[in-house]
Amino acid sequence: MRTIIGLDELRAARLSFNGTVGLVPTMGYLHEGHLSLIRRAKAECDNVVVTIFVNPTQFAPTEDLSKYPRDLERDLSLIEPLGVDLVWNPTPEIMYPTGYQTWVEVEAMTRPLEGSMRPTHFKGVTTVVAKLFNTVQPHKAYFGQKDAQQAAVIRQMTRDLNFPIEIIVCPTVREADGLAMSSRNKYLEGKDRAAAPVLFRALSAAKTVYEGGERDAETLRRKMKEVLDGEPRAQTQYVSCADYDTLEELDVIKGKTLLSMAVLLGKTRLIDNFVLG
Amino acid sequence: MRTIIGLDELRAARLSFNGTVGLVPTMGYLHEGHLSLIRRAKAECDNVVVTIFVNPTQFAPTEDLSKYPRDLERDLSLIEPLGVDLVWNPTPEIMYPTGYQTWVEVEAMTRPLEGSMRPTHFKGVTTVVAKLFNTVQPHKAYFGQKDAQQAAVIRQMTRDLNFPIEIIVCPTVREADGLAMSSRNKYLEGKDRAAAPVLFRALSAAKTVYEGGERDAETLRRKMKEVLDGEPRAQTQYVSCADYDTLEELDVIKGKTLLSMAVLLGKTRLIDNFVLG
Repeated sequence: MRTIIGLDELRAARLSFNGTVGLVPTMGYLHEGHLSLIRRAKAECDNVVVTIFVNPTQFAPTEDLSKYPRDLERDLSLIEPLGVDLVWNPTPEIMYPTGYQTWVEVEAMTRPLEGSMRPTHFKGVTTVVAKLFNTVQPHKAYFGQKDAQQAAVIRQMTRDLNFPIEIIVCPTVREADGLAMSSRNKYLEGKDRAAAPVLFRALSAAKTVYEGGERDAETLRRKMKEVLDGEPRAQTQYVSCADYDTLEELDVIKGKTLLSMAVLLGKTRLIDNFVLG
Repeated sequence: MRTIIGLDELRAARLSFNGTVGLVPTMGYLHEGHLSLIRRAKAECDNVVVTIFVNPTQFAPTEDLSKYPRDLERDLSLIEPLGVDLVWNPTPEIMYPTGYQTWVEVEAMTRPLEGSMRPTHFKGVTTVVAKLFNTVQPHKAYFGQKDAQQAAVIRQMTRDLNFPIEIIVCPTVREADGLAMSSRNKYLEGKDRAAAPVLFRALSAAKTVYEGGERDAETLRRKMKEVLDGEPRAQTQYVSCADYDTLEELDVIKGKTLLSMAVLLGKTRLIDNFVLG
């Protein structure tokens, strides 16, 4: 497994590949969710590239860029056994050199949900992913369902800009108690960690109502809110029952549907979601 | 030479190519300037793709989209003898299907000059060019120096988004009296056509001053304005003496420099430029 930093080395390595290429873009501090993406890429592609880059442009000035957890050595030791061909770990200066001024932006779909809380977030995400697509030139790229809106936005960008890339969205990996794995879970301490499965319980409760035949979206949103309100440490930012593709909030559930939520536990912000239908 | 419309046919045709691919993106109504790009692509690449697409997103609602000159049959008859492999002539619905919402935008460099007159223009240009790059996947793409700011913006976008594509900018082709070739020249009638070489004369006069050793940018801008003011039919929109790469207006000329201007003759808007250094 090669680990490289520079753009020219990346281009040369890419040219040396034969067969299909799978890309797993990450911000590092890997957990079992990331590893599941890498395993899936390894199973489906002749060559696998993992990128590790804490992308500054998707953090707002008020957010946790400098405190975002980093541990490259540990990340590499987790990736090594998986048969990854290449790890690319560029610097911010390589990705955004002096004079950098080009942005890729998906519009309507980035406004609600996470976009309403983090208005500049997805512009940073789509820009860096477009750059990773153009440098790594993968046939398939792997993202986690945990970041549901991100996955929807990247599918839309890929379709709109005609990237010749298949986007594979892999299931959320969870702790035994239902908490969705996330690099930010490391911020959760003591009682907040103990309270964190309330997101999974709220989603499960709404799913049960759905499976009982309920198709009124507001009823499902109320059910999720009710369960979250039962946990005094949890402060709900939003609950949503939206169209899976457009992310538009629904009145009546018809096709594939996204239940999602953002919740503060202490200072830690957690998101989670289920797909219905 | 094949002419195709659909995206799937384009993808299939692209996969059938061996060797290098050159892209010449056009809005049709071809003139000798376009043909010079095609000849250069033919000389440098194993396969040449010409696209003909009057891109609606680079026209403002007030501009001449519906009146923009079109003549596909004539275009094809001009391209046919040049050994082009493929002409792609997609519809607006293919390029911008229902739900389309992704934009590529270059920031600082699109604000002055043409951007100051046409604030949404370059967003449309960079978006469609990114789409053409992803569909045609060329090794080289050819643009005319006539649209100097467009060429600079596309070079910047290509660098910033890491497109693995070489941008080739070809010299402006001119009529015998110096008028830069443009599809919009067909709008020029009678006395306006006779007055149109004033742009070339203004640029030539400034160049002569530069070649005499003058390095004060304002002196060159004044010289261009003076010549333009000598033509009563010409209404100057801007004259500029700017850095070739950043398009920032200069005080003192040092390296590669762009002299440029936009002038109204009657209702027809003409642009032209010279590169110094």
